[in-house]
Amino acid sequence: MTATRIIEILRNSQPDETVTIQGWVRTTRELKEFTFMEVNDGSSLASLQVILEPSIPNYGTLVKQLGTGASVQVSGVLVSSVGKGQRIELKASNVTLYGEADAQTYPLQKKRHSFEFLRNIGHLRCRTNTLGAVMRVRNACAAAIHQFYQERGFIWVHTPIITANDCEGAGELFTVTNFNLNNIPRKKEDQTIDYSQDFFAKHAYLTVSGQLEAEVMAMAFQNVYTFGPTFRAENSNTSRHLAEFWMVEPEMAFCDLEGDQNLAEAFLKHIFKTVLEKCPEDMEFFNDRIDNTVLATAENIINNEFGRITYTEAIALLEKCGKTFEYPVEWGVDLQSEHERYLAEEHFKKPLIVTNYPKTIKAFYMRLNDDDKTVAAMDVLAPKIGEIIGGSQREERLEVLERRIIEQGMIPDDLWWYLDLRRFGTVPHAGFGLGFERVVQFMTGMGNIRDVIPFPRTPQSAEF
Amino acid sequence: MTATRIIEILRNSQPDETVTIQGWVRTTRELKEFTFMEVNDGSSLASLQVILEPSIPNYGTLVKQLGTGASVQVSGVLVSSVGKGQRIELKASNVTLYGEADAQTYPLQKKRHSFEFLRNIGHLRCRTNTLGAVMRVRNACAAAIHQFYQERGFIWVHTPIITANDCEGAGELFTVTNFNLNNIPRKKEDQTIDYSQDFFAKHAYLTVSGQLEAEVMAMAFQNVYTFGPTFRAENSNTSRHLAEFWMVEPEMAFCDLEGDQNLAEAFLKHIFKTVLEKCPEDMEFFNDRIDNTVLATAENIINNEFGRITYTEAIALLEKCGKTFEYPVEWGVDLQSEHERYLAEEHFKKPLIVTNYPKTIKAFYMRLNDDDKTVAAMDVLAPKIGEIIGGSQREERLEVLERRIIEQGMIPDDLWWYLDLRRFGTVPHAGFGLGFERVVQFMTGMGNIRDVIPFPRTPQSAEF
Repeated sequence: MTATRIIEILRNSQPDETVTIQGWVRTTRELKEFTFMEVNDGSSLASLQVILEPSIPNYGTLVKQLGTGASVQVSGVLVSSVGKGQRIELKASNVTLYGEADAQTYPLQKKRHSFEFLRNIGHLRCRTNTLGAVMRVRNACAAAIHQFYQERGFIWVHTPIITANDCEGAGELFTVTNFNLNNIPRKKEDQTIDYSQDFFAKHAYLTVSGQLEAEVMAMAFQNVYTFGPTFRAENSNTSRHLAEFWMVEPEMAFCDLEGDQNLAEAFLKHIFKTVLEKCPEDMEFFNDRIDNTVLATAENIINNEFGRITYTEAIALLEKCGKTFEYPVEWGVDLQSEHERYLAEEHFKKPLIVTNYPKTIKAFYMRLNDDDKTVAAMDVLAPKIGEIIGGSQREERLEVLERRIIEQGMIPDDLWWYLDLRRFGTVPHAGFGLGFERVVQFMTGMGNIRDVIPFPRTPQSAEF
Repeated sequence: MTATRIIEILRNSQPDETVTIQGWVRTTRELKEFTFMEVNDGSSLASLQVILEPSIPNYGTLVKQLGTGASVQVSGVLVSSVGKGQRIELKASNVTLYGEADAQTYPLQKKRHSFEFLRNIGHLRCRTNTLGAVMRVRNACAAAIHQFYQERGFIWVHTPIITANDCEGAGELFTVTNFNLNNIPRKKEDQTIDYSQDFFAKHAYLTVSGQLEAEVMAMAFQNVYTFGPTFRAENSNTSRHLAEFWMVEPEMAFCDLEGDQNLAEAFLKHIFKTVLEKCPEDMEFFNDRIDNTVLATAENIINNEFGRITYTEAIALLEKCGKTFEYPVEWGVDLQSEHERYLAEEHFKKPLIVTNYPKTIKAFYMRLNDDDKTVAAMDVLAPKIGEIIGGSQREERLEVLERRIIEQGMIPDDLWWYLDLRRFGTVPHAGFGLGFERVVQFMTGMGNIRDVIPFPRTPQSAEF
């Protein structure tokens, strides 16, 4: 008999329907006349209440075995619930116990556990309310991302994870090697490492961004996006950093900074809107239990036209706002979190996009503006969130790009293929990057980024 | 003015509409009275034919600059085409040239290029008909995969790329390290490598499969799937191997081998069907130019109920079929490609699923059958394709699993968290793995797997 998912029953089923469910026991409460049992199958935050009456086979033995965490299949008839808290409940006629969970050793007993404790049982923590809700929201968010781009004719491109480009993020790169580390081959002449004998015949790394390769693909398909894992070997043991995280990077040919801003705004609105629609119970749970501003923040993003100002205007605003900042403001400095939050939360009170940053604080590939001082960069800042998207129009002019590469101490020949895109049929193009876990964090209000990815990778930790 | 994608124009636009297109010149042909120009924007295999008349501004200069690969924006009015080969064409009133492509140096001139040659210009090859079609089909296939699982309430789970589990694929694992390879720290006592000083404080690798972690997630959400990159440091320089490739791995709690087979069959039918619907021109191109069986193979998969036999039955069939195989057949040996192809192509003439293989040739996590000789494994074999999916019901019984781990020379404690899934609320569960590039290869008929992924990673090659 095919089982019905509990979310379906809670949303759509009517009394008198015969159903079978499968899931894990959250709690049981044994009364004199019968036993209440909450069963959850991960399809929704809410569990289904099951009533076990002494008439069911093996009642006496069974209720002792049905502890928190036990796995069951229950068949029976749905009835209207007289108790409060649920519309409908299941009167069991048949219960199959698949596996017990010994109350002495099962770590997830019915009580509050700290997120830190739960991180140590990463293989079990998604069975809790909060982590379950996080992962459902994460999935809805991921699905919304694909939906957004696929509907607009963007091609999902799988940019390489292993790369030999070290032009970005030097010092924060993980090495990928097939060497036996006990016996690394060295060149006879100078005893340096002989990477020609490594798997890829050169020093290889884990990617920090798929952007450069996404640009390659945009020059063939016009509109593309990446959605894949990226890596930073940054020794930051903070609540905002992961060594392995997922990024979304759209790249559009024949697009300028304004088109880039328009896409970023539509994209953010879309994912927040879709998740609110798809996971209303989970989002209410976060608003109630984790951060009582998450629904307001989402509505703010969905319903407001984003503000748009230049970096130069932002600096002027910050200079005359009368606030004292820890990091002093002057033209040329990078905006700090405190500045970004002031702009979004106090001045605009809604998301805004800051454009045209000084070239000295931005990457070589951003398009140089006519003032020769700023580049066509953009950062999207949101209340309570800060920077959520960073992007730019790309430098499409060969000579300018070569000059910028040299200015930043890199070697143009290392990027010969990237420069080829400017040699052959170059076009104005633009794109941006969105840290996927950051979005999930902001959407849910979860304070630590390690709690919005199934298996976090951080300094000294690659468990499970 | 917003540009229209060429696929939209070719499919839906009517004569007399005014449109703007953006793309790259494929060819031009200068006649006395006017010039034909084919423009492609990557949205479709077909280009749009543009007519440039001497009346357009700078006609004389422009037609000299519009070589293969140049990037343009063209505005004009659509007219019915009098020539054959297209329904509609664009009479240009305005042409903007963004970037030229010098005919002397641009490698993609209008002629046939070998796939091998194109691999050396991986940053440009997607601008060709074949690679363009491959990547559109790849995208359609990827989108179909997400659609299939999302519609069925499966959660997309991002299993870790960096892992410290070396229980699978030993010897084929890439090491991930933050060590300076010139100066690897060693323990004082015995001079062995001190991994406690590496980024993750242990020897870390690139994942070969997300299955074990997907099982963790299935024990919380019932139905989940992975879709992400996996890695093999296998020194195989063949047309069927990549060091970095994408895998899809669904995992279902409360599911047995029969449910696993049902899902695999529905899944394959869905992706082939969806791609045929979404990319009819591209698929016809592959059938015409690459392999004239791809459409028939797809139809065969879509329209036939898959055959289902046990390994033992398959061996009996092979033994009595009268064919001489290179690899002799007897109960206990693994099926070779020649055996699989005989079964699918000559005996069944349609896809089939072989189940219940000898335990000695399968992985430790597959569920032991009551005969104590076979495990609840399954391989899906398809005509012209061979094995396309491998899966199993998983061993959910703690004691049996521990015994199997020890039998295979591994240490149960290394898999403590995986065993915990059997300690606490264990359930029958099953899943399978699909090599994404293999599917794209089979769908398109492309002979070399390096030509169905944007940036292939293979021994001695991690370009771009």
